[in-house]
Amino acid sequence: MILDLDTGIDDAMAIAYAVGAPDVDLIGIISSYGNVVVEQAGYNSLQILELLGATDVPVFLGEPHSSTTEHFDVMAISQQIHGKNGIGEVSLPAPTRQLETQSGVDFLIDAVHQYGADLTLVPTGPLTNLAAALQKAPDIATTIGNVTLMGGALTVPGNVSHFAEANINQDAEAANAVFTSAMPLTMVGLDVTLRTLLTTKETGQWRDLKTTAGEKFADIVDYYIDAYKVTSPHLHGCALHDPLAVGVALYPSFVTTFDLDMFVQASGEDYGRTIGDPARLNEPTTDKVAINVDTERYLKTFMDYLTTLFKAH
Amino acid sequence: MILDLDTGIDDAMAIAYAVGAPDVDLIGIISSYGNVVVEQAGYNSLQILELLGATDVPVFLGEPHSSTTEHFDVMAISQQIHGKNGIGEVSLPAPTRQLETQSGVDFLIDAVHQYGADLTLVPTGPLTNLAAALQKAPDIATTIGNVTLMGGALTVPGNVSHFAEANINQDAEAANAVFTSAMPLTMVGLDVTLRTLLTTKETGQWRDLKTTAGEKFADIVDYYIDAYKVTSPHLHGCALHDPLAVGVALYPSFVTTFDLDMFVQASGEDYGRTIGDPARLNEPTTDKVAINVDTERYLKTFMDYLTTLFKAH
Repeated sequence: MILDLDTGIDDAMAIAYAVGAPDVDLIGIISSYGNVVVEQAGYNSLQILELLGATDVPVFLGEPHSSTTEHFDVMAISQQIHGKNGIGEVSLPAPTRQLETQSGVDFLIDAVHQYGADLTLVPTGPLTNLAAALQKAPDIATTIGNVTLMGGALTVPGNVSHFAEANINQDAEAANAVFTSAMPLTMVGLDVTLRTLLTTKETGQWRDLKTTAGEKFADIVDYYIDAYKVTSPHLHGCALHDPLAVGVALYPSFVTTFDLDMFVQASGEDYGRTIGDPARLNEPTTDKVAINVDTERYLKTFMDYLTTLFKAH
Repeated sequence: MILDLDTGIDDAMAIAYAVGAPDVDLIGIISSYGNVVVEQAGYNSLQILELLGATDVPVFLGEPHSSTTEHFDVMAISQQIHGKNGIGEVSLPAPTRQLETQSGVDFLIDAVHQYGADLTLVPTGPLTNLAAALQKAPDIATTIGNVTLMGGALTVPGNVSHFAEANINQDAEAANAVFTSAMPLTMVGLDVTLRTLLTTKETGQWRDLKTTAGEKFADIVDYYIDAYKVTSPHLHGCALHDPLAVGVALYPSFVTTFDLDMFVQASGEDYGRTIGDPARLNEPTTDKVAINVDTERYLKTFMDYLTTLFKAH
């Protein structure tokens, strides 16, 4: 498995899920801009890996901005939700491992060529890196095993506009290239992540472990839960956006999926909307959309993995 | 069963499906504005019933315009698709039966009070009549057996705007009142009706029957198929919007449904959008959305019912 993260609080939980899952070989993390700038995302990933004793996982820098811009500034709402440093203003020990020198895009292409159908990619930020890899090496569309992404909203409104989910909104053009490619894609969007909530009851269980990882993760995620109280008070918890995508990549049966070839609107008022393509409704599909989730079973697995991991660190 | 129709070519096929189905007691048709004005819709329903030998079915006039306007004009695109008379410019014999004098809204309320859970309502036009009945007699929301409506678009774009399907677009306020009520609702929208297509191969089979009904229906539906060649050439046929809703009301297993409480956007650029309500994602649902359809099995049933009926008239 490769994660492509704009690390971010829920991205940090995605790392913990992948490190804690007993049946994953996490071969690398690619960094993206989004919740923070790309360098900060890379640094945060290194810090989280260090905290979890997973210093064997290399971290690569991906693209610093969208495919249609020359620059990226973090949105104010991102800073409000994730903190300015991306991990809830919590201080973590400096990582001992350094960022890799190879680009994230080249690492991804090489990994697809090496592992083919055995490789699972989980992007939980903008799809800029994946689209860049697809453009450089189009063959990866049909050789990669599985892409399960956090992003998009099909059956519910977006969270940046009525139409756009934040990750897709960062680079709708890149997302459209990915969605309309022949790549086998599972979209884990707001449709299901807003049904998968964590509360201070669970972070309290981590805090009670009295380990560094347990206490730091409780601090980080409590920041996120507090932000949700302001931005989405009706949810009564924080959404497990990114770790749900990792869970679905490993156990697709956590969700109910619907086969639908989609496109991403890349202009106009509905910029960033992920929606079915009427012209391809009666053709074989390569995209799947998660539309419902077995929240109880997922949350149990999530807590099993993370609590066991935090207990040991 | 009660049909609420803005008759219309596919509405005419919905009447034929309900009359031809062996297990339906069609107790009345309510007329709506939409494809034509309400009086024309009522007259067309009477003509179609006459053609099919179903003169025992009463026809009632519903509301003449949306809940937020004082007037209704037929859209040019409606005239292009259904013809100015609503039934493909085909002439049919004058009906022997007259329109009922009771209002469609009162007829509906009385029928729900009389038949309760045994009553199925299939609205295939704007939801103005149903919303008016709900406002006048709120108890019908929980006493009616089943409402299966043609309208909306959840997983594909609309057909009037990127967001709005034509029926919902006529009166989004009324649709929102219906969608957010406690009424048990199944939405049969563009998600599935654009997957359910009829071609001149099938209308040719009706024409070959050499009956009046067979030849007239072939003429009417060929007009619709020709219009689709201009407006939706990628479909290679015409969509069975309204008769699919009747089919689903009788045999829900024709479609795959997804439980989702929705609302209808009643202002702004996305006026008329039918979309999941994020605030009710984690609550018990009363709405179902059809997201996939067993096209082959439905089309076989559709042709069985209509061909047998046309053979006898």
